Amino acid sequence: MATIGDIGLAAAINLITAFIFLLAFAILRLQPFNDRVYFPKWYLKGLRSSPATSGSFVSKFVNLDYRSYLRFLNWMPDALRMPEPELIDHAGLDSAVYLRIYLLGLKVFIPILFLTWAILVPINWTNDWLKDSDANYSNIDKLSISNIPQGSHRFYAHVVMSYAVTFWTCYALKKEYETVALMRLHFLQSEKRRPDQFTVLVKNVPPDADETVSEAVEHFFLVNHPDHYLTHQVVMNANKLSKLVEEKKSKQNWLVYYQNKYERNQSKRPMMKTGFLGLWGEKVDAIEHHMAQIEKLSNEIAEEKEDVVNNPKAIMPAAFVSFKTRWGAAVCAQTQQARNPTLWLTEWAAEPRDVYWQNLAIPYVSLTVRKLLMAVAFFFLTFFFIIPVAFVQSLANLEGIEKRASFLKPIIEVKPIKAFIVGFLPGIALKIFLILLPTILMIMSKFEGLLSISNLERRSASRYYLFNFFNVFLASVVTGTVLEQLDTFLKESVSKLPEIIGVAIPMKATFFITYIMVDGWSGTAGEILRLKPLIIYHLKNFFLVKTEKDREEAMDPGSIGFNTGEPQIQLYFLIGLIYAVVTPLLTPFILVFFAFAYVVYRHQIINVYNQEYESSAAFWPDVHGRIIGALVISQLLLMGLLGTKAAASSTPFLLALPILTIGFHMYCKGRYEPAFIRYPLQEAMMKDTLERAREPNLNLKGYLENAYLPPIFKEAESDSDDDDDEMGDKKWAKDNTLVATKRVSRRNTPVPSKVSNGSSPNLEEIQEKDKP
Amino acid sequence: MATIGDIGLAAAINLITAFIFLLAFAILRLQPFNDRVYFPKWYLKGLRSSPATSGSFVSKFVNLDYRSYLRFLNWMPDALRMPEPELIDHAGLDSAVYLRIYLLGLKVFIPILFLTWAILVPINWTNDWLKDSDANYSNIDKLSISNIPQGSHRFYAHVVMSYAVTFWTCYALKKEYETVALMRLHFLQSEKRRPDQFTVLVKNVPPDADETVSEAVEHFFLVNHPDHYLTHQVVMNANKLSKLVEEKKSKQNWLVYYQNKYERNQSKRPMMKTGFLGLWGEKVDAIEHHMAQIEKLSNEIAEEKEDVVNNPKAIMPAAFVSFKTRWGAAVCAQTQQARNPTLWLTEWAAEPRDVYWQNLAIPYVSLTVRKLLMAVAFFFLTFFFIIPVAFVQSLANLEGIEKRASFLKPIIEVKPIKAFIVGFLPGIALKIFLILLPTILMIMSKFEGLLSISNLERRSASRYYLFNFFNVFLASVVTGTVLEQLDTFLKESVSKLPEIIGVAIPMKATFFITYIMVDGWSGTAGEILRLKPLIIYHLKNFFLVKTEKDREEAMDPGSIGFNTGEPQIQLYFLIGLIYAVVTPLLTPFILVFFAFAYVVYRHQIINVYNQEYESSAAFWPDVHGRIIGALVISQLLLMGLLGTKAAASSTPFLLALPILTIGFHMYCKGRYEPAFIRYPLQEAMMKDTLERAREPNLNLKGYLENAYLPPIFKEAESDSDDDDDEMGDKKWAKDNTLVATKRVSRRNTPVPSKVSNGSSPNLEEIQEKDKP
Repeated sequence: MATIGDIGLAAAINLITAFIFLLAFAILRLQPFNDRVYFPKWYLKGLRSSPATSGSFVSKFVNLDYRSYLRFLNWMPDALRMPEPELIDHAGLDSAVYLRIYLLGLKVFIPILFLTWAILVPINWTNDWLKDSDANYSNIDKLSISNIPQGSHRFYAHVVMSYAVTFWTCYALKKEYETVALMRLHFLQSEKRRPDQFTVLVKNVPPDADETVSEAVEHFFLVNHPDHYLTHQVVMNANKLSKLVEEKKSKQNWLVYYQNKYERNQSKRPMMKTGFLGLWGEKVDAIEHHMAQIEKLSNEIAEEKEDVVNNPKAIMPAAFVSFKTRWGAAVCAQTQQARNPTLWLTEWAAEPRDVYWQNLAIPYVSLTVRKLLMAVAFFFLTFFFIIPVAFVQSLANLEGIEKRASFLKPIIEVKPIKAFIVGFLPGIALKIFLILLPTILMIMSKFEGLLSISNLERRSASRYYLFNFFNVFLASVVTGTVLEQLDTFLKESVSKLPEIIGVAIPMKATFFITYIMVDGWSGTAGEILRLKPLIIYHLKNFFLVKTEKDREEAMDPGSIGFNTGEPQIQLYFLIGLIYAVVTPLLTPFILVFFAFAYVVYRHQIINVYNQEYESSAAFWPDVHGRIIGALVISQLLLMGLLGTKAAASSTPFLLALPILTIGFHMYCKGRYEPAFIRYPLQEAMMKDTLERAREPNLNLKGYLENAYLPPIFKEAESDSDDDDDEMGDKKWAKDNTLVATKRVSRRNTPVPSKVSNGSSPNLEEIQEKDKP
Repeated sequence: MATIGDIGLAAAINLITAFIFLLAFAILRLQPFNDRVYFPKWYLKGLRSSPATSGSFVSKFVNLDYRSYLRFLNWMPDALRMPEPELIDHAGLDSAVYLRIYLLGLKVFIPILFLTWAILVPINWTNDWLKDSDANYSNIDKLSISNIPQGSHRFYAHVVMSYAVTFWTCYALKKEYETVALMRLHFLQSEKRRPDQFTVLVKNVPPDADETVSEAVEHFFLVNHPDHYLTHQVVMNANKLSKLVEEKKSKQNWLVYYQNKYERNQSKRPMMKTGFLGLWGEKVDAIEHHMAQIEKLSNEIAEEKEDVVNNPKAIMPAAFVSFKTRWGAAVCAQTQQARNPTLWLTEWAAEPRDVYWQNLAIPYVSLTVRKLLMAVAFFFLTFFFIIPVAFVQSLANLEGIEKRASFLKPIIEVKPIKAFIVGFLPGIALKIFLILLPTILMIMSKFEGLLSISNLERRSASRYYLFNFFNVFLASVVTGTVLEQLDTFLKESVSKLPEIIGVAIPMKATFFITYIMVDGWSGTAGEILRLKPLIIYHLKNFFLVKTEKDREEAMDPGSIGFNTGEPQIQLYFLIGLIYAVVTPLLTPFILVFFAFAYVVYRHQIINVYNQEYESSAAFWPDVHGRIIGALVISQLLLMGLLGTKAAASSTPFLLALPILTIGFHMYCKGRYEPAFIRYPLQEAMMKDTLERAREPNLNLKGYLENAYLPPIFKEAESDSDDDDDEMGDKKWAKDNTLVATKRVSRRNTPVPSKVSNGSSPNLEEIQEKDKP
């Protein structure tokens, strides 16, 4: 049992670590040559370009202005300063609502902190149960529920407090659900015209002997939505084309590289070998060789394009159907079209950036099978992942390696290498697995056939949360592999489970406090430092970057990463709610995490992360549901704990809590969830009417015609035009964001001016510019 | 353990009982004075009238034609002869599909019978496990899985057979789901115009300070469905009016009675006392008194009607909104209307007969609370119902009664009464509870706020099934009260449960065989005899019937009673599937039940039951789901059973079965269920187009205007007109059925003619009439 001193020491260590990270961040971000690592969002928006070529050579790489270092923590107030509506304009609703999860954490736990410290801490402290018993205890335990004697009437206080926590959490959740639902509707309402507002994705178009897919779609919708159908775009299987375009792109990069090389040193034509990686093979003139190759690929691409468009086998039985009005699209997306409910399936089209093109043509039966397979696979992954990991670990011992690869023996016998293998390798298998886990879960979601990236991330997030719940939370509490837990679960009685876990809960408080500090405090500080992207960027910059375009590509802004970030927050909600009543001492640590992470992620969202898609906060029902789940789990565990405390008189009062909580959830589900799934006709009609009044002569057909062309086609179209290569991708994003964004970033690295305060982006400056 | 001889004896007893019931039925149904008991359906359709007043006095009551008695079993082929399409015309799709559940039972269990008898019976029989053991066993057990030695490889046969049973059942289920879905769509498609095709029920109309509900509805739909909105009908709270109309009706009946009496005996004006039940109070002239009362009530009704229509408080925030096209209604029913998803809730209107008017105005929040309350109440009802029953039983003992009601002492001390109380009374409390149970469940469903009678019955059915599963099936298998089971369930490990139940399964085979014979064979035969309606009809006829209209009302055709009948069938599916592999001997008994019940219920549906509403087989997903549930339970129990048989090598092969079954269920749910919930736009458009071509000048508004007037208004409208009193109710039904029905029933009691064969209805005769 750790004492308060131990905890204090751990806190100090983690605070210092976090402080070092923050300091390093503050210094690194001011250096011009790191600009693309710490402000990629502004580059992506086209509001910032590479550090100016003017100025001294040194100042291109290092910021020499000492004043900027003095205000090294100023990014914090800056991150908080951007108001929410502007943040929505800047980074999208998804990001803004994602930040609200941290805020919700603060809203939930601040009143809980005051309540529990005011009431439960004195109640727990003024007992001598632990002192009288022979148990090994610390002052932390004196503050927790463990210090209450068996069967004491003081447990009523905990029951009452549990009600208070539940009611407060539900109240906060309801308020938040309401706000987010309104924000979503407001966002959809006030948004500019977007193609997905008019478009519905139709899957499983039945094959027809006489008609092509395109004709079938047109006929079907002309008949069944005569007043509303406008146009459609069939989905094509462009995987081969996509490969060819990729190849050509790479060749073009090499060509530019060799041309640059030749320009610098005109005395020698650059030569290369044609074999693998340029290691062997015939030696040829590199520029000519690449030109010839590009020529060849261009022809192949043209052929393949022809083929995809004309070959009926490349046309998938799916189409994006656009309507004349939002009302028509809303109707089509929400209704069943055909007698056979597995044909002509309609759903809202995701926005073009969000579509996951590869999964568009999976037939209905296969979907059921895939779903089931993945459910089973996930079950085994969660409960049996330890088996392959243990197997790899068994291989990774010294004797094993020597036996299997005897030629390595001389190397292994070297002392430091031996020490490394013995001490580090066994653990590394598990570590690698855990690092790969989000990717594995994402692949599983993709295999399942979900149709948009946002959906994929949501599914992965809920699986990641479950995995964490069993393998991080439960495994930490009952200390045993999950396999053993599963065994307990099957062998033990159902009613015993909360008891088993409940009893272990107070004893694990210090462990979780440490966990919060390491993962939540230092981890979050590490996130803002972006050590990995920083190193990778500079490595790429040094070894691989040949052209300015490559530098653009070497910049890895990353994204919020809903599929890993949200489950992490949820774990804190779970721990926080469970310990709120049991060990009130833990709450402040959770609060520090929420506050700090809120600031950090706000900064990252403003300056770093790229917005890959916009799902208009479609993930909120998941967030809400998981917090409710955590609430119910915390109630069950408290019941189990009190059950062993011989508090027979007070425990039954807890029975109503989970029922009430589930009732509350049902209510919220009915009241707010439809706002995240459907699009009310009233809204659609309102927007249609407004638009008709404003732009009576709008050419909607022209606007929608190519909105849902697969991105690869757009890339393939801009054939030899280098600069426009990604125009197809970006054009749409610009359509959307350039209008919405009112802010500009300075064109060069942050140099403190009279107005600016040395941190970027400079708000006052911008606000002044905005003023007429 | 019962021997085959014991089973044979029980079978003989039950067969004789059933035979006696059938004989009694065959004789009773031929008597003219029972005509209204055994052929009410034909009376309701207006195709048959009371036995002719011509003929001798005796032949009005007794059928003297001896020939008709010779063919007393002819009703069976007659019941089978009516083809299904005609049956749908005659009794509705619900009834026709309901019969298909019995047919499905035959389809599932006949191949299972052959398979298991051909393979499992020899395998089980050729062992000597039971003989070698000291166990007390019978020949029945020799045929069951109990006879296989521990750890034998023969269990593989059972595993394989379990796969065969599962695959065959799933195949039959899929075929049937497909057929029923098609029948439903075909029915909806070929049906005549019905008001509910054009109408949507809108609930939770938000209150508006400036507009009445009616105005708000009109404005909302004119704005949001401008091209499709036609008209609407607000829902009024007419409970008081309903009471007044009821009262007036009863007074009118009395008036007619007294007038008849006076006519027959003109010498004396009938007198009555005004007090309670005519037992005391002032003596007045009965005819005058009633006339005055009716006059008074008529005025009150007129006032109340005025009040209901004009008083905004009597208008509920709900309305039936009708559209110009089926397409418009289909769109409105399937989409979300308003920003707030708990306002302007739309759903398909049930057909007017099916609407449960009282629940139309329950607000959204209240619905969640009610749902939750009822879920909790049902949980307690299922697991704790035994407590109040036991309490009543404890009251019903001799000393208890003597103590509480000492004045009864002299009566109780009489020997036969004492014997009765001691021997019978304790059991009677449980019996009464079980008889009342369907009513209790129905009241619970009503309280929950479901909006149509068909929905109420479906909900009650699923609860009744669950209750039966725990309190009939499980309680019989593990022999203990459900409370004890619940205790086991909570205390024992989850994986142990299938074992505990699985082990008990083979031992209970004889019990269930007896259960099937008593409940399934004799019970079904008792159903066709209609003893209770027969007695009640004659009692009413003798004591209460004053007018011809009263006689009409004394006739109680009953209905299929989905809420009790379907759970009973499901119990047989459950037993049949569980024992299919364990004790193949049981299957034939199940088969006899399905075959016999099919014939009996087909007869009843044709001749007796009144069709109270038409839900177009909306119940099939429930039926399908419960059979799947039974299949999974049977697989789990077999796993548990084999687990204790030390068949460790074969048991794991069963693991895949429940997963496959659940996957199959998911597939079916996606593939066929939408056909039972939504109405495809394609269908709607097709019907609209056809109708527009056929009847271009249709006055749809006139047709729909009063379709959803609450029935009580229609009754109240036909103010003093006696004969038309129920026209409002019946007119609609006639619109529908008179066209569809091509058959006529003979106007008088069944007298064998040259063509007819003495059973009713006479098919050949009708078919000949139909010919031109």
